[in-house]
Amino acid sequence: MKKIDFPVAQVRRYLEPGPIVLVSSAFDGAANIMTLGWQTVMEFTPSLVGCMIAGGNHSFEMIRRSGECVINLPTTALTDQVVGIGNCSGADVDKFEKFGLTASKAAKVQAPLIAECVANFECRLVDDAMVEKYNFFIFEVVKAHVAASPKHPETLHYTGDGVFMVAGKIISRRRKFRPEML
Amino acid sequence: MKKIDFPVAQVRRYLEPGPIVLVSSAFDGAANIMTLGWQTVMEFTPSLVGCMIAGGNHSFEMIRRSGECVINLPTTALTDQVVGIGNCSGADVDKFEKFGLTASKAAKVQAPLIAECVANFECRLVDDAMVEKYNFFIFEVVKAHVAASPKHPETLHYTGDGVFMVAGKIISRRRKFRPEML
Repeated sequence: MKKIDFPVAQVRRYLEPGPIVLVSSAFDGAANIMTLGWQTVMEFTPSLVGCMIAGGNHSFEMIRRSGECVINLPTTALTDQVVGIGNCSGADVDKFEKFGLTASKAAKVQAPLIAECVANFECRLVDDAMVEKYNFFIFEVVKAHVAASPKHPETLHYTGDGVFMVAGKIISRRRKFRPEML
Repeated sequence: MKKIDFPVAQVRRYLEPGPIVLVSSAFDGAANIMTLGWQTVMEFTPSLVGCMIAGGNHSFEMIRRSGECVINLPTTALTDQVVGIGNCSGADVDKFEKFGLTASKAAKVQAPLIAECVANFECRLVDDAMVEKYNFFIFEVVKAHVAASPKHPETLHYTGDGVFMVAGKIISRRRKFRPEML
């Protein structure tokens, strides 16, 4: 999949719609992947994203200790991999191998990109003040890669209970926005 | 629209997919509405939701001072109202009146419900430690009301630049989840 560099200040384009994402991490020679649905954009510049990563996840300590991760955006083409990744633990299996995913080298972090995802956001942990109380990590996106096409990939949005909503259809109301509000 | 009570521990059903929401608030005799796309579920019990509310919003001080708000879920039927509400200020206009929306009485907070929305989550501000640095408010949902139907309302997911993704189509993979992971 051909990827192009993307401005980190504009990652809301991919993350504000609230898709399920795959978070990859690396620590002490091992890599792992987890699914994540509890995240929000927090700022344009610096490009901040807040993520709730429950302490029970094998990825929790890997991310906390390495201070890095990659937020990868899967489309509906990866639905079964998303479900599978969320239903096993990196303590037991190598998820890249088990799910046939490719770990690519990132530009600015040690955590790998998932090549099959349509967007990859390399992140550094910049504020862990809320980790102890809420498992809430604040990351800065330091490098963004996105697929050149499609322009509007079909994404998965988790509702709980094994059910995803699918987003892909687009409504534009650009002309009704004040320029400064776009 | 007929609404039923909904368990507050399960509001992820509506909010985890990442829809744009309308946040209503009340303070000192006035009510207001703002659009919000930067929010995340943070915990099941207590039912916590984290929201980035920029200081420039008229609602910011109303929510901070009252310590309350209602998170209302609009469907695509309210697209033009969502866009309109995000492109004017409560300092200038009464948004309920301007957009023909009905303010209904909430059960546990002073902020009004927006009757035309398919779900209404009454919230109390429980942690403002991150407001000064990030404009990040942590609310507890103390009462939830949802429309009896449809089961999967079509929701708006903002990408920036005046463009929304629409989610509504459903994929179920329930049988592929371990029961404790649902």
